[in-house]
Formats: sequence, structure tokens, C-alpha cells
Amino acid sequence: MSHAPTAALDRRHQTIRQQTTTHSLDALVVTSLSNVLYLTNFTGSAAIAVLTADRVYFLTDFRYLTTIEESRGTAFDCPSLELVTVDGAYDVALAALLTQLDARRVGFEATHLTVARHTWLTRTLAASSASPPELVATEGIVERARVRKDPYEIATLREAARRLSAVALALPADVRAGRSEREVAMAIDRRVREAGFSRPAFDTIVAGGPNAALPHAHPGERKLHEGDLVVLDFGGVYDSYCVDLTRTVVIGRASDRVKEVYGAVLEAHDRAIASVAPGRSRFDIDAAARDALTARGLGDVFGHGTGHGLGIDVHEDPRITRKRPGDEAAGAPAPDVAPGMVFTIEPGAYLPGWGGVRIEDDVLVTESGVEVLTTAPADLIEI
Amino acid sequence: MSHAPTAALDRRHQTIRQQTTTHSLDALVVTSLSNVLYLTNFTGSAAIAVLTADRVYFLTDFRYLTTIEESRGTAFDCPSLELVTVDGAYDVALAALLTQLDARRVGFEATHLTVARHTWLTRTLAASSASPPELVATEGIVERARVRKDPYEIATLREAARRLSAVALALPADVRAGRSEREVAMAIDRRVREAGFSRPAFDTIVAGGPNAALPHAHPGERKLHEGDLVVLDFGGVYDSYCVDLTRTVVIGRASDRVKEVYGAVLEAHDRAIASVAPGRSRFDIDAAARDALTARGLGDVFGHGTGHGLGIDVHEDPRITRKRPGDEAAGAPAPDVAPGMVFTIEPGAYLPGWGGVRIEDDVLVTESGVEVLTTAPADLIEI
Repeated sequence: MSHAPTAALDRRHQTIRQQTTTHSLDALVVTSLSNVLYLTNFTGSAAIAVLTADRVYFLTDFRYLTTIEESRGTAFDCPSLELVTVDGAYDVALAALLTQLDARRVGFEATHLTVARHTWLTRTLAASSASPPELVATEGIVERARVRKDPYEIATLREAARRLSAVALALPADVRAGRSEREVAMAIDRRVREAGFSRPAFDTIVAGGPNAALPHAHPGERKLHEGDLVVLDFGGVYDSYCVDLTRTVVIGRASDRVKEVYGAVLEAHDRAIASVAPGRSRFDIDAAARDALTARGLGDVFGHGTGHGLGIDVHEDPRITRKRPGDEAAGAPAPDVAPGMVFTIEPGAYLPGWGGVRIEDDVLVTESGVEVLTTAPADLIEI
Repeated sequence: MSHAPTAALDRRHQTIRQQTTTHSLDALVVTSLSNVLYLTNFTGSAAIAVLTADRVYFLTDFRYLTTIEESRGTAFDCPSLELVTVDGAYDVALAALLTQLDARRVGFEATHLTVARHTWLTRTLAASSASPPELVATEGIVERARVRKDPYEIATLREAARRLSAVALALPADVRAGRSEREVAMAIDRRVREAGFSRPAFDTIVAGGPNAALPHAHPGERKLHEGDLVVLDFGGVYDSYCVDLTRTVVIGRASDRVKEVYGAVLEAHDRAIASVAPGRSRFDIDAAARDALTARGLGDVFGHGTGHGLGIDVHEDPRITRKRPGDEAAGAPAPDVAPGMVFTIEPGAYLPGWGGVRIEDDVLVTESGVEVLTTAPADLIEI
């Protein structure tokens, strides 16, 4: 179980209920496990939550019953939870519950439910009742609530970022010539665990020399050597929340070209962070980084977005990117950032055959501006 | 990239093409990343494959282009691959490709594509062409091919299981009184990495004392002490393939009750393995384990299935479980196991407040019977 206080869970439920009321839904079926965790603190691998006006029906199986029962009466107990034990297939239990609830309009998460499950549910509900509930596609109801973190989440992410910064400070001890990328990745993962994270938030990236030009390289057997730029991108999950940090180091003395590229990426990073404030468009934050790189002739080799939201998922809204077709369509996330949002700022430059640089920190939008949650210095380190 | 030989990929494509021909499909859109990996060796985090009669269109973005280009001409190059670079949203690129291919009936993976993506694709295709392709729901076309492993996969899983068995042999060095579950889990994860796995296949379980009664406990701060039963369940990903192993140890001397429960679970484990043979029903294999536990009065505290398939996913078909409603429906996986299938055998007994035992090994169905891939002894270890 995660540890959001009961009162925080209750506020989250009320926020979602305002949305379901707006959409005239009698119930919302939550199948995304990240959304289930947000609403109930449940961290297991299988559950469905059905939120109604006054209950959270919680479907899970044998494996998790003891954990649920043990959370009862604790400070992070999920309010108004009705446990439904699943013995067999989850969707069979869900269909039975929906039939029994006698709800008329039942929302489901169209960005999470597969076509096959939806087809099966529709048919099964139709066969179970003369007047089956109507399944109504919804998108992003819980995700839109998750994008602005509550005080519990902010405290968790701040602590997580503090711990990940300590891992970053130890990088010079782990990176050295003669070690393989894989060995360095193992050393970083060990420190991530020792720093109190339950696990890495994603596969750690250690990309040296020409591999540093691949933004998502897998750490391999290549040994690091003098002159290599090494991109080190790692994250951790702390009490169910993800943080993410990248530093690029050079082995030995930095050449003029290395200093130049690193300086350009650092300037892009600093400018993007300086541009963060409530009400600022996420496209403008991306442009702050991109324009700085373009001015140094590196705009074409910065092929990804400037950042992504952090929370229960390691990639969530808001996306700090260029504006794309569809970004102003109805239902698309609003462009403006707002207090409580937490996201990465991670510009990079990738030069095939030569190497690359990425510098990533995690920021919180505050009422007055920005707080950088990760605290390790971002200056170029020569090892 | 994973390392299936080009000829193996080609055979996989031909197997899928027989299915698409049977279903009168001009193309199959593969959105499951595990299925994409199976067909192309691609191990990145974003791609779509579109299989036609003579091509594999492969949609990916900037981050992975260099990796794809570097695999060209190697021994694990994907045959007839046509690279389509995605600059923006994947489904926009997919819709453009499908319109351009002029395919009439296009299969999609209904158990992977979400309702939201399907709705968007249907609308977009309809708006792009006077005679848009028909999207046809399919289920399990690639998964049914994956369930029987080819020689490359068997060699990979055998080597992975050998390496994981070495980790199991080292358990007595890592488990001791005074250490927390979390510390033991970290030690196991370190050994998994050192054994050559790219990562743990799932969150390692270390559950001591009463926590051993929770089949999916998270390792916590509880310190192990004399008399504890400790369930240790861990896995690794080796060249993209997952293996999974559980041992239960006792700290100090085993009580008579511990010996009794352990003996019952071990007998269930041995009987289930002895029952594995080509043509045997997976329900019968489950019954072999379950009946052994029931005969010792432990049938009610074995609440999960006896096993699950292993491969690119850590849980895949075949499921070694009791027969459930729907298991004989059209389209349900056949009940019989067949040569090339690889799955776990992992009976357990969980006694709330007291503790639990689980013993898990990985087996391969051969032409003549069964090969146990994991080789660590399963006798009770007193630490």
C-alpha cells in the first residue's frame, strides 16, 4: 500500500465525483492501475475500482485480501471502500457488480480499456439484464486530477528528489575508465536502492562515447575510456512516486567541443527552468530550451521533448513539448502549467558518431514560480 | 535489440501470415510491444509493426533510428523490414501508412488496442479516404505463435534458467537473522544483475514470518529472525526472456509443522512436474499439485494457479490453473500442453498469521516429457 492520508484520498474521490456528475455518470470504472493507486493507495498488480456517489467498490483477488484488511483503520485507509473478492476473471466480477449496482450510465477509461474487454463487457451486460447499463467512454478524468499534486504528493516527490540527488552526487565514484556501461548501471542501481527507493523507475541508461548519441541506449559491454562523454539517466520509485535525473560527465579533460556542447545544453536547461511559472504555456517552456540550442546550431540534434510530468507514472502529463497538430483539440490537456505540477526539464544534444549530452532535473510549479526539486549541481564533471 | 536469428524471425512471420491469410486480412497491425519484439527483435519502448504479405512496416521514432540502422545486415536483422519514421504521434503515422497501403481488411490486436485509439483510428481512416480500410478485431494471433518456443528461444530460456539457478544457490549467503526483507531483496537483485540479467523480471519478493502468508508481499523493513519461514521469489530478463524461481527457507531449525507444510508443498511441486508431458491438459497438471495439497489438508490455502507461461512476458500462456467458466469457449487457449512450451510450476500454502511456503521451478515440455530448466535443489534449507 502507498501512504496518502485518508483525508487526501477523500479529497481525490470528491474531485473525481465532480467530474462524473458533470458527465451524468452513476459510476466510473477505473481499470488503470496507476489511477486505482491514486484513488485507493493500492500498489498490487491486479484490481479494479468502481467509484459511485458514495462508495469505492474495490475488486481484487485472494493475493491481496490480507493487505487490504490490514490497511483498515490505519491513517491511510481508503474511505468508503467496499471490498469485492474476485475468484476467477476480473471482468466477470465487474459485470456482476455493475448489474447488481443497477447503475444507468457507467463511465469507463477509454484510454486504458482494450477493445476486447469492452466488447466482452458490453455483450455480457446485455445478456445479464433486460435494461443493461450504458457503458460511456471517458478520457483522462483521473489523470487530469493527478496532474496537480496535492501536499502529500509534493512532500513525497520532494523527499524522493532529495534522495535521488544524493545518488547523483556519488556518480564520480562509480564512473571510471575501464568499467563497462553495464557495470556502471549496476552501481547506480545499487545506490538507488540504498537511497531508499523501492526500485529504479526505469531501466538505467549509461551511454558512453558514440552511444551517448542514442537518447535511449541500453547499457552494454562497451568499456568507458578517456575522452568519453557519458550520459547517466536514472530514476527511482519512492513510496509509489517516480523521480528522474540525468547528468553527463566526461572522462578525463573536456575538449573545447565538449565544453561548447555541454554549455549549450546547460544554458537550454537553465533557460527552460527560469521560464517555468504558473500560467506559462508548456510549449513556451519547451521553446525556451529549444531556442537556446538553435541559437548555438544544435536545434536539429535535440530530437525529443524538453520534459514530462512525474508522479505515479514516470511519464505523465504535462508534456513539455513543441505544439503538435491536435494539441488544441477539445479534450487535449490545457497548455498552461499550474501550481502543483511536477515535471522534468531535460534538454539534450545528440551528435551521431561523436556523442551526446543531456541534463535533467525535476521541478515543481509553485504559486509564485518554480522550485527545483533535484539539487545536485549541473556543472560539467571531469572524471 | 534482441538476438533471434534472421531465419527465426522469418519463420515467425510466415506463421503469422498463415493466420492472417486464414482470417482474410491484408495486414495485421501489431501494437503489443512484446509481440513487436517477437517479430522484429526490437526492445525499445515505442514502435508499431504492420505485417503484410511481403513486408514488415516498422514505425518508430527518432530515439531508435540509429539502433535499427545498426542492426541491418547483422545476423539478427529483421527480414523485409520497411522503416517508417514517426515524427509526432504514432497513430497519425499509422493512419497515414494504412491509407497509403490501400489494404482492405486490416487486423488489429483487440486485446491490446484501447477503445480510445480504436475510435480515433476508425474516424481518421474514414475521413482520409472515400473507401477506408476495414479494421478487424483479432485476438491472440501472435500470442498463439509465441506459446511454443522455437530453438533459439529454448536455448535462451535454458541459459537464463541456468543463471537464475546459480542465484538460488547463493541464497543461504544472503538470508540471515537481523537483516530486513528489503536488504535481502537488494542482495538478490545484485546477484541477478551479476549473473548477467539485464534486469529483474519483476519486483523481488522477500516475505518473512507472517508476511510469508501473503503471496505477493512487498519486501519491507521487518527484520528476519529465528524460526521465520522466508519466501524468496525472484526472476531475471536475459536477452529479453524471463525466468522465475522461488525458494522458501527457514531461519534456524525447522519445527515439525514447518517440515510438514514444506513437505506437502514439495510433494505438490514434484507431482505437478511429473505430470507434465505433451498432450497433457494444463488443468490436470494443476490438479496434480492441488490434489497433493488437498490430501494434506492444505487445498484451501493454495489460492493461486500452479503456474504460468514464461517468455518475452513474465506471465503468458499457458496458464496452469483450475478450469474456469469460459475455458472451453471458442478462441480460448487449448487445454493441452505441447513441446516447446515453457512455464512455471509453483504451488504454495499460505497460513494467515503463521507464514507460508512456495516452491517454484521452470519447466520445458519436450517431445517425450519434461525438462526442468531451473536446477537448484528444492529441499528445505535451514539457515
